[in-house]
Amino acid sequence: MSRQDLDFDLVVLGGGSGGLAGAFRAAAHGARVALLEPGELGGTCVNVGCVPKKAMWLAAELADHVALASQLGFDVPASASLDWPTLVASRQRYIHGIHASYRRRLDGDGIVLLPSRGRLLDAHTVECGNGTRLRAANILVATGSHPQRPDVPGAALAEVSDDFFALHAPPGRVALVGGGYIAVELAGVLQALGCRVDIHARSQRLLSHADAELAERLQENYRQQGIGLRFGFDLAAIEGEAGALRLRDAAGNASDAYAHVFLATGRVANSRGIGLEEAGVELDARGDIVVDACQRSSVPHIAAVGDVTGKMTLTPVAIAAARRAMDRVFGGQPGARLDYDNIPTVVFSHPPVAGVGLTEAQAREQHGDGAVHVYRSVFRPMRQALVDRPQHSLFKLVCVGEERRVAGIHLLGEGADEILQGFAVALKRGITLADLHDTVAIHPTSAEEVVLMR
Amino acid sequence: MSRQDLDFDLVVLGGGSGGLAGAFRAAAHGARVALLEPGELGGTCVNVGCVPKKAMWLAAELADHVALASQLGFDVPASASLDWPTLVASRQRYIHGIHASYRRRLDGDGIVLLPSRGRLLDAHTVECGNGTRLRAANILVATGSHPQRPDVPGAALAEVSDDFFALHAPPGRVALVGGGYIAVELAGVLQALGCRVDIHARSQRLLSHADAELAERLQENYRQQGIGLRFGFDLAAIEGEAGALRLRDAAGNASDAYAHVFLATGRVANSRGIGLEEAGVELDARGDIVVDACQRSSVPHIAAVGDVTGKMTLTPVAIAAARRAMDRVFGGQPGARLDYDNIPTVVFSHPPVAGVGLTEAQAREQHGDGAVHVYRSVFRPMRQALVDRPQHSLFKLVCVGEERRVAGIHLLGEGADEILQGFAVALKRGITLADLHDTVAIHPTSAEEVVLMR
Repeated sequence: MSRQDLDFDLVVLGGGSGGLAGAFRAAAHGARVALLEPGELGGTCVNVGCVPKKAMWLAAELADHVALASQLGFDVPASASLDWPTLVASRQRYIHGIHASYRRRLDGDGIVLLPSRGRLLDAHTVECGNGTRLRAANILVATGSHPQRPDVPGAALAEVSDDFFALHAPPGRVALVGGGYIAVELAGVLQALGCRVDIHARSQRLLSHADAELAERLQENYRQQGIGLRFGFDLAAIEGEAGALRLRDAAGNASDAYAHVFLATGRVANSRGIGLEEAGVELDARGDIVVDACQRSSVPHIAAVGDVTGKMTLTPVAIAAARRAMDRVFGGQPGARLDYDNIPTVVFSHPPVAGVGLTEAQAREQHGDGAVHVYRSVFRPMRQALVDRPQHSLFKLVCVGEERRVAGIHLLGEGADEILQGFAVALKRGITLADLHDTVAIHPTSAEEVVLMR
Repeated sequence: MSRQDLDFDLVVLGGGSGGLAGAFRAAAHGARVALLEPGELGGTCVNVGCVPKKAMWLAAELADHVALASQLGFDVPASASLDWPTLVASRQRYIHGIHASYRRRLDGDGIVLLPSRGRLLDAHTVECGNGTRLRAANILVATGSHPQRPDVPGAALAEVSDDFFALHAPPGRVALVGGGYIAVELAGVLQALGCRVDIHARSQRLLSHADAELAERLQENYRQQGIGLRFGFDLAAIEGEAGALRLRDAAGNASDAYAHVFLATGRVANSRGIGLEEAGVELDARGDIVVDACQRSSVPHIAAVGDVTGKMTLTPVAIAAARRAMDRVFGGQPGARLDYDNIPTVVFSHPPVAGVGLTEAQAREQHGDGAVHVYRSVFRPMRQALVDRPQHSLFKLVCVGEERRVAGIHLLGEGADEILQGFAVALKRGITLADLHDTVAIHPTSAEEVVLMR
């Protein structure tokens, strides 16, 4: 490359979902863009997060559907064995397809892809691993995050979610440490695929961000599925050797032996050692890049999106924030910014948990008990009822005020993952309970329960 | 019963979904209610419509999921055989549970259930089959509809949808006559459960009410599944004998031989022979009861809802209309009425087709080509892509005007049945394309495609 070739309107650090979305949007606005990514394109989401997780979740759902089919009269085993390598190969082929489509699109958009980790030498200069220096009018930091291990003896004996996706055989007896969505999702998948799983959580319940009533019902479901749940667990050490690991708690008690222990104890921003602080970019105590409402760091021409900011660490949030930041910088839309209110989220548990807006507890805190009206539907989806299974769905509306403004929608049950998106649009647009009632139901579905609650 | 016991505030003719909903709502308002139903409670929907159809659709989906599981590495046959009686027994047990819950609720609400067909002697008197006469201040007619056979030689050799639900073994080689949703739904189920199905439709395409582009893509899907499609078919006769029936068209050509021929050539109101015309209730040329916007017939204290009115013959429409009619009559809400605009509908095909609002063609006709903006997403859901299947989803937005008001949402693909409800709320409330874009996506789902279209 000539010297001029190394001058860019934008250098993006990180080729995950946020970085790619920013690069594509900037290029669409005519910017000259370089993207630095030392690993696979797509970051955590595509490689060791949402995508392979969903693939495993779909496989777990198929295992469950085979069992249902057996009960309904199909000539299949109630518990079908799985050739794990075939599943993993299908999953990885799908992921390679995503990599290839990203590369084609980068090429097509004229974005320079450098397979390298970038490091800021100053606020306008990025150095690649091979010493090449890029001059950047603007920088977008989208370097993501990585799993955090607790600081206890033997932590290195355990694995993290990245390792889950490297498994090529069922892991047998498994302990998950953590009560957040990663622990919940991995536990559900592994149990459904024939492993025996125990969750050890420091908290008093699963999914502390979710509505408490849904979390409790999920716990009931997990217990019915055979998942062991231990709450208030204070991990003191991990002991033993590969294949026979035990968790020791603060009181000195040792757990059963596990073939694998997975730590799902939080993630930490990839913000250190890449020259951010030297370039004047402020980090908070956790190491997250501090950004304003427009994703600007303390150095105005350096923006940051996604996990590295620690704000709503979800792929679609990183993508939406990156697009708006680039609309602001290159698209002549100085006010473009992502509204972080009422962002819908789904936990791919079995069954899934979906929510948008305020939980009941949040609504009571913000509006007072007298102003909060809660509506519930507890029902058994036809697929469960046909074989007389106990699994019930719980759908819940949190309404506020005389006019019953819908402030929160919380769904636990099959289909919740697909049902929520449209209701999230409606909630964000602003609806009351009457707007739900004015919409005719689609019968027979689970989704109709949301408009029939009273 | 004493004479006074035979005086009611409301007599409901028909214990289908609309009649039951009306009876429950009237009772909730304090009315003394009698309900006449000679058959099973729940009418077409519960007994020979939505509910058993959905059960069969779920079974068909499970058959497909078993095939997917086989490809993904589960030790199951790619094409599992089905013990049809087990499936039917599960389905009927589920339906009996619904009957029982209706009976419990009628008892609990103090509604008098008479297992009889009712006939109007005059505008205030209903005679039961055993001669008992009921005095009714108000009457709600919700007698539903039944399948219509075309007037051709041999029509009696063929069966109708009611007979489909009486099958206790797979019917083998099957012809379906018709191109509407009933033909499409039965064809999809039967093909997925191992039969070989041909559709013979008078129209030039399937689902003439649906968006044309989705219907065409469904046709491609059906052909890929092995369903034969013949359009512009003018049925002249049905010939042969049970187990070997042939369709003859107007040009004299005979079809292959079929084990079963199912007619899905429309339905006709159950409005004749029950004293309606004698009581002064106006019927139209088709035999549908003519009602105003408040479900009032030409005799003001006689209301009608559901299929017998021929208006949007869907279960949730009958239910919603009945509730509002009873709110009007007994609930002190003189203006209560169902808004028939923007009612969402789903066809349980494989994959399902869901739509609300204007099709592209309707929008162009109403608003002119220049004002209509169409957005599409064609994508392969992860479950299909994991095993490299060709099935793509097609999601489509029909927007109108500069502000891109969303006037129609049309979804073909797995999950469409559950995805639409929330978007239907949003559309009815009134949204623009910008409202969709302002809602953060839920990843990875099919539903997110609706908010990502541009």
